[in-house]
Amino acid sequence: MSVITIIGAGMMGSAMCFPASDNAHEVRLVGTPLDREIIDAAGATGRHIKLNMNLPEGVKYYQTEQTDEALDGADLLIGGVSSFGVDWFGENILPKIPEALPVLSVTKGLRALEDGTLEPFPHYLMRCYSNGRRLSLNAIGGPCTSYELAAGHQTHVAFCGENYETLVKLRGMLSTGYYHITASTDVRGVECAVAMKNAYALGVTLAVGLSEKIRGEGMADDYNAQAALFGQSVYEMGRVLELVGADSGNIIFGAGDLYVTIFGGRTRKIGTLLGRGMTYTEAARQLEGITLESVVIARESVKAIKILSQNGKADINDFPLLMHIGELINDGKTANVPWESFTHDRK
Amino acid sequence: MSVITIIGAGMMGSAMCFPASDNAHEVRLVGTPLDREIIDAAGATGRHIKLNMNLPEGVKYYQTEQTDEALDGADLLIGGVSSFGVDWFGENILPKIPEALPVLSVTKGLRALEDGTLEPFPHYLMRCYSNGRRLSLNAIGGPCTSYELAAGHQTHVAFCGENYETLVKLRGMLSTGYYHITASTDVRGVECAVAMKNAYALGVTLAVGLSEKIRGEGMADDYNAQAALFGQSVYEMGRVLELVGADSGNIIFGAGDLYVTIFGGRTRKIGTLLGRGMTYTEAARQLEGITLESVVIARESVKAIKILSQNGKADINDFPLLMHIGELINDGKTANVPWESFTHDRK
Repeated sequence: MSVITIIGAGMMGSAMCFPASDNAHEVRLVGTPLDREIIDAAGATGRHIKLNMNLPEGVKYYQTEQTDEALDGADLLIGGVSSFGVDWFGENILPKIPEALPVLSVTKGLRALEDGTLEPFPHYLMRCYSNGRRLSLNAIGGPCTSYELAAGHQTHVAFCGENYETLVKLRGMLSTGYYHITASTDVRGVECAVAMKNAYALGVTLAVGLSEKIRGEGMADDYNAQAALFGQSVYEMGRVLELVGADSGNIIFGAGDLYVTIFGGRTRKIGTLLGRGMTYTEAARQLEGITLESVVIARESVKAIKILSQNGKADINDFPLLMHIGELINDGKTANVPWESFTHDRK
Repeated sequence: MSVITIIGAGMMGSAMCFPASDNAHEVRLVGTPLDREIIDAAGATGRHIKLNMNLPEGVKYYQTEQTDEALDGADLLIGGVSSFGVDWFGENILPKIPEALPVLSVTKGLRALEDGTLEPFPHYLMRCYSNGRRLSLNAIGGPCTSYELAAGHQTHVAFCGENYETLVKLRGMLSTGYYHITASTDVRGVECAVAMKNAYALGVTLAVGLSEKIRGEGMADDYNAQAALFGQSVYEMGRVLELVGADSGNIIFGAGDLYVTIFGGRTRKIGTLLGRGMTYTEAARQLEGITLESVVIARESVKAIKILSQNGKADINDFPLLMHIGELINDGKTANVPWESFTHDRK
């Protein structure tokens, strides 16, 4: 029995209440300044207004000004903010916690540094917000939609961090009959694999829009084209893993997360609109209100591969799909999939 | 312009009329003894009764007893039979053709030899039916459903064979704005990648049935579980490619073909029924009339990996999903997915 404090009461942070509660831990869910309504409603009724379901009984709710109280005696801090909240989390939460308190973050994403290094968020937080302290910053990656986790669907994710024993301990606290956890010290490998899917999910779903443009909306049973893009995506993801010196086994999380994002995620909407022939500006306008976190991450991926290529560390010809995605989200171009450059001749 | 003779008027063989005809070749479609009705109807009306669409104008139709006439002057022979027709093709067609006539086969599948070698059909045909002649036996692999190819959807496949120049020539004859072709001399690599998907498509779609069992039919939006199985499948496919010494880039065709088979293929039905808890015998009874070619190929894949493992050439622990699929289709067991064995720890 431990105390698990979750900071960030969005969908994914809140979904973590379920495996935590099923392991009989004391669960404290703390809202950010953006989550005031969610915490108010959950405190009053037990219902999460965005997940649209009841959270487990026994979860305790805290507004952001009660954070100190919620952290008191905690054995694990789960960081439940989106990538847009990472700096807020680094500035406001990390200074409050003792070095001994492990952090496990659900935040997805990474940043491209000036030399093309893809920096995952645990490394970013350590670099910018640790102030020289030895914090234990770990992260979750892999195919997991919040509402399915909350509903107890079978799920396999990776917990990644520097220290294997810590990861095994966190796994012991959170694994259930439906929540299966790989423990991996290959932080960059896991995070790169799952970050790239943001770009590639957009790439695969271009086929949905391309097909709708020809055959009409709702007539997009065009699996040959999606499959061609999917196969190319898995190939390019594998090349990225090689480039960053990652364990190739991380394709489990990359390919899996790509799959779940195509079907269960929001990136499909933008890919479909781009596939129909819209510019990114037009598509973004139509999707007003939808978080475009995935597009931000896709841009970082494109940027990193371009820099690595300019530095002679990557061959741009290995990434024709990613480069086309870059043209769409950065350069105002419209979809014109380079099908022929996906051919992979072997003499 | 060349003469292209297609033997086998099933869905995939007949779909090849489209890229052949779009390249302005003379196309001759020849039925096997099983295709009599198809050829009769197509000859009379131009319509293919199984594809349920009109074939291109100008295609010439031949019954099986007119095969010699259809082969006369041919520049390319497309083998359009299913894996159940391979021996018929080897016995009845190959002896008729000159060494100079290249063969391009749409037949999917491979056989597990006694030492665990996965033998693709071009090698099998050469071994059993060439009678010492130097035939040019090539094959098509990759994600391509017949009705989408016939409808001109974007498609990327691999032509594989021993001779690169021949493959490039065949590509020149058949590539179109929608039919994109990789030329690869890595025959075993291409064929293994695309054969394994028969097993793994069954594996991924177990999640559909598992979900329906809990939440009711039609309520299977369970992408976390499908994604966990998909990621594991791509990983295991990659390990198979390593085992057979294949180009790892063939994952383009393996992952792509897995994707298209999950959504556009018939294997989904059997995986779903097994996922609901049926035994294979019960599921096969319910699917009476559906070709279980994919199950035959899945069995060969399981058999090969088991033999390679017994011979110390493969580690059975790398293939927990394939082994579970083997239990389902060979040993009468019911679905009990070994989720925890998919974890891929990295210390």
